[in-house]
Amino acid sequence: MKLSALWMAIEVGGTVAFAMSGLIEAMRKRMDIVGVFSVAFVSAFGGGTVRDVLLDRRPLFWVEHEAYLWLVLAMVLTAPWWLQVALRETGARLMTVADALGLGLFAISGASIAVAAGMSPLVSVLMGTTTAVVGGVARDVLCNEVPQIYRDHRPYALCAVAGGAVFLALAAHGVAGEWASAGGVAVATGTRLLAVAFDWQLPGWGIRRS
Amino acid sequence: MKLSALWMAIEVGGTVAFAMSGLIEAMRKRMDIVGVFSVAFVSAFGGGTVRDVLLDRRPLFWVEHEAYLWLVLAMVLTAPWWLQVALRETGARLMTVADALGLGLFAISGASIAVAAGMSPLVSVLMGTTTAVVGGVARDVLCNEVPQIYRDHRPYALCAVAGGAVFLALAAHGVAGEWASAGGVAVATGTRLLAVAFDWQLPGWGIRRS
Amino acid sequence: MKLSALWMAIEVGGTVAFAMSGLIEAMRKRMDIVGVFSVAFVSAFGGGTVRDVLLDRRPLFWVEHEAYLWLVLAMVLTAPWWLQVALRETGARLMTVADALGLGLFAISGASIAVAAGMSPLVSVLMGTTTAVVGGVARDVLCNEVPQIYRDHRPYALCAVAGGAVFLALAAHGVAGEWASAGGVAVATGTRLLAVAFDWQLPGWGIRRS
Repeated sequence: MKLSALWMAIEVGGTVAFAMSGLIEAMRKRMDIVGVFSVAFVSAFGGGTVRDVLLDRRPLFWVEHEAYLWLVLAMVLTAPWWLQVALRETGARLMTVADALGLGLFAISGASIAVAAGMSPLVSVLMGTTTAVVGGVARDVLCNEVPQIYRDHRPYALCAVAGGAVFLALAAHGVAGEWASAGGVAVATGTRLLAVAFDWQLPGWGIRRS
Repeated sequence: MKLSALWMAIEVGGTVAFAMSGLIEAMRKRMDIVGVFSVAFVSAFGGGTVRDVLLDRRPLFWVEHEAYLWLVLAMVLTAPWWLQVALRETGARLMTVADALGLGLFAISGASIAVAAGMSPLVSVLMGTTTAVVGGVARDVLCNEVPQIYRDHRPYALCAVAGGAVFLALAAHGVAGEWASAGGVAVATGTRLLAVAFDWQLPGWGIRRS
Repeated sequence: MKLSALWMAIEVGGTVAFAMSGLIEAMRKRMDIVGVFSVAFVSAFGGGTVRDVLLDRRPLFWVEHEAYLWLVLAMVLTAPWWLQVALRETGARLMTVADALGLGLFAISGASIAVAAGMSPLVSVLMGTTTAVVGGVARDVLCNEVPQIYRDHRPYALCAVAGGAVFLALAAHGVAGEWASAGGVAVATGTRLLAVAFDWQLPGWGIRRS
């Protein structure tokens, strides 16, 4: 079956999209190449690294799959030549899709790794969401901004939570691992794409309410 | 004896107070529910998590005592209905006391865990203080502020240091564990409450001095 | 031989220089003594701590060599009395040299620890650079600034990369450990001092290019 090749393609696409979000933000802040590489690296690998440290898992996944490191390095080095093109409308749309796929894949793979490490359902969903979103949080902290996913009001982390919950529910009802994963990714990525397409808004969780 | 029930009550109160400090700060920044939950979570569990990672201790304490996770989740979900009340004067005063109790308890429990892991007195006091204050530091970093405890000039971390030192000194002089702990918590919490009540001020540690 | 005494002297000098960079930054932000100590501590030990956590290495190096902790503590406590002097021109120049030596030493010792832990050349160079620069990044995040090394455009992290690469290349060609280390430190420290002396500038890695 070619399912594993599909997973691989999604993983590469997600990593590229996450790295690009960091790369673009760092360039906007007029950083030098060290800043651009660092922020791109943290955006792409921060979530998985925090997950691995919290679960005490070694080797870290970017140590194990070093090709991803080289990929991000190559992206940063060549960025000035292709970034203009990537920022045009088609490129932006492609990136939204790749980012949503990365969100779904990292949320489910993170949750699945946590389950394998003996974590409870709640902790597993949290670990999956951590894998998917902490890179972006670290990116914004390094760029000296309040993390975007905390104030954007457009569902992102919640899509990862929903996907992780569906994955665990399917697995708990005896659905085979690959299919449960596919269902989880579909829910996380699907809800994210819908949220972007229809501009769904979360309410502020404010103090004003009486 | 009912001492362990008392510890448990203090621990719940401290966790609630720490989570509330994050919850309020995140709401002030007009974050959405994802931001409010993340910042409340980090405020409550950040210090203990950093301590556990530095000491290479697993499972993390919020993985072991998952009830705390559910508690913080429930607090965030219901916050809009009770927060107004909590912010009135009595609520604010209650929170200052709960926060001071949490400071003392986390400082001593952190130091005691470090001692059990074979750390030296200096490192143990540092680990206790880390447990007590790093959640608040992470909260402020995520909210894009200079950490409050670094610039507040009202003793907070130093109360944790004092309590940890007293705890270690008592234990070194043969005082039984429970009583040494009680002494340490009393010093940390007591000095903190005195600092708030009498508005003690630390001097700036400035460059101007000649 | 007196080589190990030389290493020790460089390590002390580098730690002092790193701690001072945090101490000065924190004082500029008008922090109290808790803030000044925390930022100095993180500047001096943050890089090595992150390296040790990522490589899952215990005891942490500041737990193993506790004298460094006491040194930083003593520096912070006495700072108001000597800092004026240190900030005059000779002091500033001395600090640039000590910082460059620290950069070189930490980059090479970090890379060498990573190699010993079985890491690949790319990961080892990254770990060395992490050891040398992450303390400064954490210092700037705590002071609520965009990390200086990301936007300074004057080579710093790249000198650590160059030194690490030379160290690995020498070791791979059979040069004995001590000499390979010396070569790596010389390249990292030397390029850094040249960059400062001749005001080398990295180009912005910007979006404007067409």
